[in-house]
Amino acid sequence: MADDKKTIIVFSGDLDRAMAALIIARGAAAMGNEVTLFFTFWGLNLLRKPAPASVKKPLLDALFGWMMPRGAGRAKLSKLHMGGLGTAMMQHVMKTKHVPSLPEMLQEAKEFGVKFIACTMSMDVMGIKAEELIDGLEYAGVATYLGHADDANLNLFI
Amino acid sequence: MADDKKTIIVFSGDLDRAMAALIIARGAAAMGNEVTLFFTFWGLNLLRKPAPASVKKPLLDALFGWMMPRGAGRAKLSKLHMGGLGTAMMQHVMKTKHVPSLPEMLQEAKEFGVKFIACTMSMDVMGIKAEELIDGLEYAGVATYLGHADDANLNLFI
Amino acid sequence: MADDKKTIIVFSGDLDRAMAALIIARGAAAMGNEVTLFFTFWGLNLLRKPAPASVKKPLLDALFGWMMPRGAGRAKLSKLHMGGLGTAMMQHVMKTKHVPSLPEMLQEAKEFGVKFIACTMSMDVMGIKAEELIDGLEYAGVATYLGHADDANLNLFI
Repeated sequence: MADDKKTIIVFSGDLDRAMAALIIARGAAAMGNEVTLFFTFWGLNLLRKPAPASVKKPLLDALFGWMMPRGAGRAKLSKLHMGGLGTAMMQHVMKTKHVPSLPEMLQEAKEFGVKFIACTMSMDVMGIKAEELIDGLEYAGVATYLGHADDANLNLFI
Repeated sequence: MADDKKTIIVFSGDLDRAMAALIIARGAAAMGNEVTLFFTFWGLNLLRKPAPASVKKPLLDALFGWMMPRGAGRAKLSKLHMGGLGTAMMQHVMKTKHVPSLPEMLQEAKEFGVKFIACTMSMDVMGIKAEELIDGLEYAGVATYLGHADDANLNLFI
Repeated sequence: MADDKKTIIVFSGDLDRAMAALIIARGAAAMGNEVTLFFTFWGLNLLRKPAPASVKKPLLDALFGWMMPRGAGRAKLSKLHMGGLGTAMMQHVMKTKHVPSLPEMLQEAKEFGVKFIACTMSMDVMGIKAEELIDGLEYAGVATYLGHADDANLNLFI
């Protein structure tokens, strides 16, 4: 039923915005909804493996890859990052308050059955290869996103 | 009826984004819609009282509180802030053009019956207490948001 | 039918966010949807003509106009802009990978029948005149947006 589906485009790779996306996704999945996260642009960085993958790339692709954070564990706050201090403070506060970390939230969302789709067009533009991304993803483009969105009763862009 | 409900997640505390959220909320409410604004993360700062509240807090919570703007009157532009100059220019321009200020828009939205919900999980993470926030709010989490969103025909994340 | 309509509020004037908006808009239009893009705030800059228009303006309006990019060809990345280097790299990469440029995407979206609406209230606040914007636009406010959104099954804020 339409009422049971939600989609979120995870465009941002910022810690705070990614947390918002995952808290909604996890909450909706826990309430029995079918949730699809569509990771695109900076959001793809959340899906990168922490260790560098040994893939051959053109120079500019390699440069972009080198400048962008590898994985959810390295996501930064969009505000008050302050050279890392603010982000570290936030992560510390989350820990003391027993809020799961971003990598833990990603893992939990998966266990709740949230579907993760990596946007293939963004991967192409940003020079990110499937080998660099975590397991358990689907790969698709805008037509697939629109198909999911048409069936959903909540569609957010974060 | 479903057609009469709208929700907006006010994630951003930036002047420009908050204005967009409030202009849509006020417009929808004026047209007879039931509108819910769900304030989360930086958006919570829009609801803070301008004067510091005398609440005891752990050090990191106090630090975050001290670094974030207290109230809609101190929200900054996301672009062209320029150390305050751009934001002041924008506020001046809005005044000369008889556009209500952000605090006035908040007040008007309330008078139009827009429902304001403060996200309790974000309050916990950011160390913001109910005593620091303006009156007339409801307090709830993601499940409440999802309940409202399921009944709405317009759901935005700003 | 409701299933055939989509709206996107193009609030951001950033290259990456504007690309996301246009890729979705173009995709949806190609699949037979009626798509409306509502350009507001920084998003209006995407619609400016590249050449300065000779319109008389109050000083502050002229200043804002001078500080903001004129047209989609001058949009910057929201991240990794690096004084222009990152944006130029991205544009170069897009070219080598045969991804259309942002101005080309705008043009294609128009040819696919996507409706472009410029937000008149934002134009007023930012001091942007119709003469400064590209041809083929409609001009309207929040009530028109809400009318479109009510008929749509996908509404995003980007």
